Amino acid sequence: MQRIRPGYHTEYVNMLEIRKLHSLSLEEKRSLVYRDSLELEGVISETVKPIAHDIESFGLSSLKKFCEKYDSFFPENMILEPDDLEKQFNEVLMKQPDIIEAFSKARDNLESFHRLQIPEDFEAEIAQNRLGFKYIPFESVALYVPGGKALYPSTVLMGVIPARLAGVKEINIITPPDKSLGQVNPVVLAMAHLAGATRVIQAGGAHAIIAAATGISEWNLKPVDFIYGPGNIYVSAAKSYVASKGYCGIDSFAGPSEVVIIADKSANPYWLAHDLLAQAEHDENATSILLTDDEEIASKTAGHIERAIESRDSDRKNITRESIKRNGKILVCESLNEAVAFSNEFAPEHLEIQTSNDDEILSSIKAAGSIFLGRYAPVAMGDYYSGTNHILPTNRAARFSSGVSVQSFYRRVTYQKISYAGLEASRGPITVMSKAEGLFDEHGYSILARFEENET
Amino acid sequence: MQRIRPGYHTEYVNMLEIRKLHSLSLEEKRSLVYRDSLELEGVISETVKPIAHDIESFGLSSLKKFCEKYDSFFPENMILEPDDLEKQFNEVLMKQPDIIEAFSKARDNLESFHRLQIPEDFEAEIAQNRLGFKYIPFESVALYVPGGKALYPSTVLMGVIPARLAGVKEINIITPPDKSLGQVNPVVLAMAHLAGATRVIQAGGAHAIIAAATGISEWNLKPVDFIYGPGNIYVSAAKSYVASKGYCGIDSFAGPSEVVIIADKSANPYWLAHDLLAQAEHDENATSILLTDDEEIASKTAGHIERAIESRDSDRKNITRESIKRNGKILVCESLNEAVAFSNEFAPEHLEIQTSNDDEILSSIKAAGSIFLGRYAPVAMGDYYSGTNHILPTNRAARFSSGVSVQSFYRRVTYQKISYAGLEASRGPITVMSKAEGLFDEHGYSILARFEENET
Repeated sequence: MQRIRPGYHTEYVNMLEIRKLHSLSLEEKRSLVYRDSLELEGVISETVKPIAHDIESFGLSSLKKFCEKYDSFFPENMILEPDDLEKQFNEVLMKQPDIIEAFSKARDNLESFHRLQIPEDFEAEIAQNRLGFKYIPFESVALYVPGGKALYPSTVLMGVIPARLAGVKEINIITPPDKSLGQVNPVVLAMAHLAGATRVIQAGGAHAIIAAATGISEWNLKPVDFIYGPGNIYVSAAKSYVASKGYCGIDSFAGPSEVVIIADKSANPYWLAHDLLAQAEHDENATSILLTDDEEIASKTAGHIERAIESRDSDRKNITRESIKRNGKILVCESLNEAVAFSNEFAPEHLEIQTSNDDEILSSIKAAGSIFLGRYAPVAMGDYYSGTNHILPTNRAARFSSGVSVQSFYRRVTYQKISYAGLEASRGPITVMSKAEGLFDEHGYSILARFEENET
Repeated sequence: MQRIRPGYHTEYVNMLEIRKLHSLSLEEKRSLVYRDSLELEGVISETVKPIAHDIESFGLSSLKKFCEKYDSFFPENMILEPDDLEKQFNEVLMKQPDIIEAFSKARDNLESFHRLQIPEDFEAEIAQNRLGFKYIPFESVALYVPGGKALYPSTVLMGVIPARLAGVKEINIITPPDKSLGQVNPVVLAMAHLAGATRVIQAGGAHAIIAAATGISEWNLKPVDFIYGPGNIYVSAAKSYVASKGYCGIDSFAGPSEVVIIADKSANPYWLAHDLLAQAEHDENATSILLTDDEEIASKTAGHIERAIESRDSDRKNITRESIKRNGKILVCESLNEAVAFSNEFAPEHLEIQTSNDDEILSSIKAAGSIFLGRYAPVAMGDYYSGTNHILPTNRAARFSSGVSVQSFYRRVTYQKISYAGLEASRGPITVMSKAEGLFDEHGYSILARFEENET
């Protein structure tokens, strides 16, 4: 969306725009709603495919070659088993007990909420037969945890806990090691132990995704059924590639993080400002949008954002400022209905609702990854602590996909036990139906054969 | 897998092989388990992308152009609304009441079983906060129903009923018209009415998929959230394309249909033979595999298959014979455990279990699309009538995806209502956790801001 100069349907604030939502042109609205999607095609053909062909031919030695190439080293011990992870956990516990304590509380909340998501099989009698619906957990999965400078131990909990509760036997974490440490950061490894992962594979990037999808026979590692978790464009491209080849399933591709906040005059603009800033802190390309029907809330929030950024002294503030400049928006709406309609089109990863009527707004929300209701519910609650998952669909994928939950890890399988009476009742209808489809010869006959006497 | 001459670990039957499972080489086993996957890449770049760019630029006129090109015509009335569908239904009801009666019974069974799949929202208190899990149905979906010479009214029921029960508002069917009739076959349209579809778009192929995913403004048709249902390689390539672009979600790609049967000596080989034949009837590339621990069952089944095919007089038998020749296999196992292990690797679309201990076998099955237990349960029961769905994952996708169910049509969304006490309890842990991730500045502060006095 093009920035518009002060004075024309807008109050211009240095860092982020305040606009009237209904004054946006169709083109401007579209450019807000349809975020840039990742262009994976080129990355797949130029980078991922050559890596995949190499790893499929040469296995572990190929994986190591790409670790050398992209990360300029690989740890001697690329695979860490439960004993190794426990050792790392104990070391962190000794040196930084407050970290273990804090993450353990989050783990408890995550377990409590995700345990409630475990679905139940059922079997019922329909037309004299027994029909069943069974949830069978995946055998083996791989959780990607980004590495490099950033450190996401919370993502380890978010990814491992639901898989374990679903009953997945092999929960592999793939994550790039830190060269200066010669291994993956100990806090991440401690969380792998705390969450109950099966092992950590110290490798990242597209090559690690390919290895997980095709298996590494030298390690006796079978191809996984499902790969999930956030990563950079190479990781997303590799996930797209293995999914399109039918090697395994994947969650959706991770784009930059996003928040939409719907607020009325009952909200606290100082808090709104800090919720927008928290989103912006992730990434220069993160998106932070406030929708409000109150102009005073709009201008006060904008002012708080300016002042807060200036008051920070860490390097991180440059990312936050840049993100707010690029994708920070305050949109003033005629009504909260208008705000809801925009949000439903946008389908944000995170949605905050801070109004005097949150429940009613909630009931009209059609698409969002995770929703935060009320003045005491900043997104950081769900990022870290409350118990909901933070691996969520971005870039409008919330229209058709869902955040990671226990339900992400099952095959839903139906079965049927057919009685003689049930089969008899089907005989007439299936004869007619299979004839209508030109498949009576064998489909129809597979029923009729059961009524021929003495044929064995 | 190479065919082996009679006498060497095998009894050779004209049409299909009987082999000892444990005698297969690793290579032979792999070539059985890893079926050829669709090579979509070339089709996407050569055919789908040009179509997509054209339709995105020129909308309806472009869609019509491709209908002309590929189907050599398009009906004047490309969109059929509920009134049109009802009219078609009434005509079929008058001329072929037995068809309506048979499909109506199937519809009732499908509704009964799928209604039980409707999931329940929940909300619970976790650590002084209220956390919720909500199922929000997709707004709009498109079901692809293949056309041409084949006619699949049953697929209309299988696709529409679960979407309607989930609460999807717009259920569009896209299916190619029959040139000789000047429209889609009336029986398919009657089923669209019977199942409760919103409309039928009389267009097929990749161009119809693109149109559904991008919307047709001339018809006031918004882009759909989800496209599902079986189709040819162009349809699969178009689905893969729109999914990779993030336009909408899709089910898995449809490969040739498959059955694996696990049977012991308690099974009836005549019935087994007809169940294998019914699978082969679909398509020359369909796969029909019998796993049994009984050599007599193996040879008798093979004999019945030979005789049955020879006794048929319709053209269809050429497809059936060719399919049995290409992909018909009888594998004699040392034990049923060996059979189960093979089936779990294979992850068949359809699995029949006809043994004296079906429940025990069922409990050891890890991956399959839909399972048929006992002597009275041919796959045709689920293809048409019993109430389970027949839109199922093929080609090993049952390892990580599931057949169409009511659950296929929801966004699973979490929400949280945070209490002041809950926020207070999080303050210490989130401070520690956000510091550990280098995100204290704003993430941590979005919590702390709530405890600053007088800041608004």
